[in-house]
Amino acid sequence: MSSTFRGVIPPVVTPLAEDRTFDRPSFNRNIERLIDAGVNGLFFLGSSGEVAFSTDERRDEIVKAAIEQVAGRVPVLVGCIDTETERVIEHARRAQKLGADAIVATAPFYALGGMAEVEQHFRLIHEAVDLPLFAYDIPVCVHAKLPVDMLVRLGKDGVLAGVKDSSGDDVSFRFLIQDNEDAGHPLQLLTGHEVVVDGAYLAGADGSVPGLANVNPEVYVRQWKAFQNDDWKGVREAQEEAARLMRIVMVTDGVSGFGAGVGAFKTAMKLLGVFESNQMPNPVAALEGDNVKAIEKVLKDVGML
Amino acid sequence: MSSTFRGVIPPVVTPLAEDRTFDRPSFNRNIERLIDAGVNGLFFLGSSGEVAFSTDERRDEIVKAAIEQVAGRVPVLVGCIDTETERVIEHARRAQKLGADAIVATAPFYALGGMAEVEQHFRLIHEAVDLPLFAYDIPVCVHAKLPVDMLVRLGKDGVLAGVKDSSGDDVSFRFLIQDNEDAGHPLQLLTGHEVVVDGAYLAGADGSVPGLANVNPEVYVRQWKAFQNDDWKGVREAQEEAARLMRIVMVTDGVSGFGAGVGAFKTAMKLLGVFESNQMPNPVAALEGDNVKAIEKVLKDVGML
Amino acid sequence: MSSTFRGVIPPVVTPLAEDRTFDRPSFNRNIERLIDAGVNGLFFLGSSGEVAFSTDERRDEIVKAAIEQVAGRVPVLVGCIDTETERVIEHARRAQKLGADAIVATAPFYALGGMAEVEQHFRLIHEAVDLPLFAYDIPVCVHAKLPVDMLVRLGKDGVLAGVKDSSGDDVSFRFLIQDNEDAGHPLQLLTGHEVVVDGAYLAGADGSVPGLANVNPEVYVRQWKAFQNDDWKGVREAQEEAARLMRIVMVTDGVSGFGAGVGAFKTAMKLLGVFESNQMPNPVAALEGDNVKAIEKVLKDVGML
Amino acid sequence: MSSTFRGVIPPVVTPLAEDRTFDRPSFNRNIERLIDAGVNGLFFLGSSGEVAFSTDERRDEIVKAAIEQVAGRVPVLVGCIDTETERVIEHARRAQKLGADAIVATAPFYALGGMAEVEQHFRLIHEAVDLPLFAYDIPVCVHAKLPVDMLVRLGKDGVLAGVKDSSGDDVSFRFLIQDNEDAGHPLQLLTGHEVVVDGAYLAGADGSVPGLANVNPEVYVRQWKAFQNDDWKGVREAQEEAARLMRIVMVTDGVSGFGAGVGAFKTAMKLLGVFESNQMPNPVAALEGDNVKAIEKVLKDVGML
Repeated sequence: MSSTFRGVIPPVVTPLAEDRTFDRPSFNRNIERLIDAGVNGLFFLGSSGEVAFSTDERRDEIVKAAIEQVAGRVPVLVGCIDTETERVIEHARRAQKLGADAIVATAPFYALGGMAEVEQHFRLIHEAVDLPLFAYDIPVCVHAKLPVDMLVRLGKDGVLAGVKDSSGDDVSFRFLIQDNEDAGHPLQLLTGHEVVVDGAYLAGADGSVPGLANVNPEVYVRQWKAFQNDDWKGVREAQEEAARLMRIVMVTDGVSGFGAGVGAFKTAMKLLGVFESNQMPNPVAALEGDNVKAIEKVLKDVGML
Repeated sequence: MSSTFRGVIPPVVTPLAEDRTFDRPSFNRNIERLIDAGVNGLFFLGSSGEVAFSTDERRDEIVKAAIEQVAGRVPVLVGCIDTETERVIEHARRAQKLGADAIVATAPFYALGGMAEVEQHFRLIHEAVDLPLFAYDIPVCVHAKLPVDMLVRLGKDGVLAGVKDSSGDDVSFRFLIQDNEDAGHPLQLLTGHEVVVDGAYLAGADGSVPGLANVNPEVYVRQWKAFQNDDWKGVREAQEEAARLMRIVMVTDGVSGFGAGVGAFKTAMKLLGVFESNQMPNPVAALEGDNVKAIEKVLKDVGML
Repeated sequence: MSSTFRGVIPPVVTPLAEDRTFDRPSFNRNIERLIDAGVNGLFFLGSSGEVAFSTDERRDEIVKAAIEQVAGRVPVLVGCIDTETERVIEHARRAQKLGADAIVATAPFYALGGMAEVEQHFRLIHEAVDLPLFAYDIPVCVHAKLPVDMLVRLGKDGVLAGVKDSSGDDVSFRFLIQDNEDAGHPLQLLTGHEVVVDGAYLAGADGSVPGLANVNPEVYVRQWKAFQNDDWKGVREAQEEAARLMRIVMVTDGVSGFGAGVGAFKTAMKLLGVFESNQMPNPVAALEGDNVKAIEKVLKDVGML
Repeated sequence: MSSTFRGVIPPVVTPLAEDRTFDRPSFNRNIERLIDAGVNGLFFLGSSGEVAFSTDERRDEIVKAAIEQVAGRVPVLVGCIDTETERVIEHARRAQKLGADAIVATAPFYALGGMAEVEQHFRLIHEAVDLPLFAYDIPVCVHAKLPVDMLVRLGKDGVLAGVKDSSGDDVSFRFLIQDNEDAGHPLQLLTGHEVVVDGAYLAGADGSVPGLANVNPEVYVRQWKAFQNDDWKGVREAQEEAARLMRIVMVTDGVSGFGAGVGAFKTAMKLLGVFESNQMPNPVAALEGDNVKAIEKVLKDVGML
């Protein structure tokens, strides 16, 4: 059953109108483009889906629109990201009610604690909803790394269906893959790092969650197919191509973090005609001027413009 | 006007019943005890008020109960803690509607960004509500330190009414006090570190927000009065006494962070007969067994039991 | 010329006698074993070669023994690790005098600074000695990450001959490889992470510096040859095998860092009959009791015992 | 005996000539100025004494010059700073031979480990030399915080004579003072934070090690005397004055860490006529241009120029 969740599952970026309302037409356009390219699933309200910036009402608006537009063509995963357990469970229950196929939750954050509490957090979420639960390992946001042994134990206990690994710790990810295999593969293991998906596939990952696939879904689908055919030259060449495109997040000045990363994705998607605007959620400003030009240049260099 | 917010303003701990419902009688008992001791204000839904663990419904329940019970006897500050601006503004508007006297907000967290965005965050919150706004500087939770020059600028611009400093950076706090003084004292500067309030007063702080005052409000009120009378021997002796009591957060085994800190406060308050239970919010477990005994011993050692 | 430095170049572990004197016979035995296995170079006085624990006299003793025993059969790289530039240059000059083929230096550490100073540090070392200089990117030890653009610039300027990447940042390493290629491949890029060498090769690395090769050199040499033959199944299988062996650093209790890592290497090498003792340098204790048994079990599980 | 080490003990800055040789005349001038001002001891080869930048030969040159010039008028403490135990012991033995009155050592650094190893490190140093040993708690440089219970245990066991606290953790320092008092005051506890010495004295510190005292020794001596007379207004006023002067490390652009801090001290001392040059050790550049002017302005603002 959890084997549904493999392959390329982009974390879908949320387009905003200039007035920061949700831009449904651009959102639909992007979904169609991703599905046309052949992605294997879609992940809404991830970090790059601006979950942390969205009110509950906005989150519901996005999930409803997503489920309506996707219309069952691929599985829909929904990020249920909030500080601690009870708040996450509320999001999870809403996601289930709205028709999500799976939910994705991080370790608790803001208040410090130990790993016993992190484990209990995932167990309580699992008890509260009837959906496959993915752990989102993203220490850069939550400042805790999920330990390999805990993840595999939660997989074996049927608590977790998989892991989205955005930890940047490829050594740990390798051990996770090996231990998961030894345990009978209870977890679907997806990498969130756009520029090293090739290495993750070689290590045995079940798929990828590349934010950059919003800008170029085709290259990641092509890479996945090459991997399925044991065509490592193809896997590598796709990765080289994607890494060149990823430079859009590095050519800007005076911005950092979410503003630089998702800011560049949105700007590229506007330049490509997918989004109407590259508007960003409060308190972040949209990229403009030379930063837009620098991104445009990268798109031209890689042949997308 | 903002001069209302000075002196001892404890961050009020939230008691739970065994079934994790809100324990209103214990909550009221604690408020009465704090006001009787002579505190100068009360801060609800701070980090130790378990804001991050509380659903929106629970937050409202706490704020309503607080405002009803306090009944205007001291100013009520309400923590509006959430990941990014729009979510914080929602909490702030609810707090205003419920009758808060001031609101307290941290830097945005979860999604990374730069200081320009943090500044914009506070400006947008200020524009959205008609209440004095305190910046809550707590890098251990939000992983960003608020810079002195930004804080003073936001004070001079009328955006911030004050700062609750839980940064653990006494060097920076010293410069903040000096720069604030040079700017005409636009900010009320409150320290959140229970065991070094004496140094903060000597440096010129306008007050303190000691979580430990939930356990012993009297010692912090006595210390504040000694400070008002330039009685430094008294300030220091009160601090020594409080530091001994603070050992309750250090004598436990196998717990850390919120579970050790607020867990010890709640356990002490149960032992003192203020709270019915030392229950903790999900996913945290209440302290038990030897950990309770260790806290009991500290309370006896300092003469509170 | 710098093309000499490619393939498998293990960082050689330093054996000690029980009384913590340098154990020359074990050292020689290990070198012979590594060369017999077909390694492409040897790196002495790296982090796992206990450079930080060794006095200048001990360092000289090791380098002299190394150069004598290797006798030109493979290139000898020598770690010149110290806090700041002038101290590093002293080590570098001694290494040159003793006959090293290349030197390896980290960013300066202990005293904080900016990247302009790090770049100047490498330029000054390069000016001071007539040997190929490798930058050792090891933020876990020096608490600074070497930026990709600086490394490539130093390569193009002839300052650096290569990089040993122990940063754990595979995203950055991917960009380094791509930028280095675009610049005409001035740098030899070696990965220091034993369990993800396969991904590094797929990304285009020029070689590896696996500490674990002290325990099993054969598997890394076999992996390198598979890579040279575009045999990705072989590359991956070798990596799986090495990752299972790497569990020796994770099965111990009550130790961490160098004591757990190099401690496990030395213990395994003693169990394998390569080293006489698993003694560790002051202030670290040798592994003993159940920790030794746990390592023995791993060696048996992977078929090395 | 260890009671000798109390009061104001500045970490002496090391002047360099333009060609980066040791500037003995400026060094002597500074020592005379410090002793004339009434300091209670002098600490050479601390972090601001550029120990990490100095070769062994340079370190000896500085210690010899220091002991000759001080000529027994105040106690001389010597920093024996290096990566791990055996290297530190070599420095300690040389310091003893040259006539130091006490030595100062940090936790081991570069190679990671646990606290058992840190404790063993201090025990081994103590066994190796016949001098009072101070622990230098400076996590910003060595990336480990010395725990209170370990420090007090080493004090009670006669291993440590005191602690120089540059941890920036005033909460921990408060507990250290209290536990040290309960243990019979085996440790002399000195704060290294120039702008919060007043709070440290109020908490019960035995003295201070302010780098800024190189620029203005008089204000720290005055503060110490005020403290001895229970004149808290005087203690605070001196601190306010020192904090204004400390702005010299914050008014510069494009520099950070050691280059900004010690760079500013040296520049101020050149402007005050104490040093011939503000030259910095490799790979750091001396401050120049607008940065010098900005420091000059601070000196004028506080009335020192």
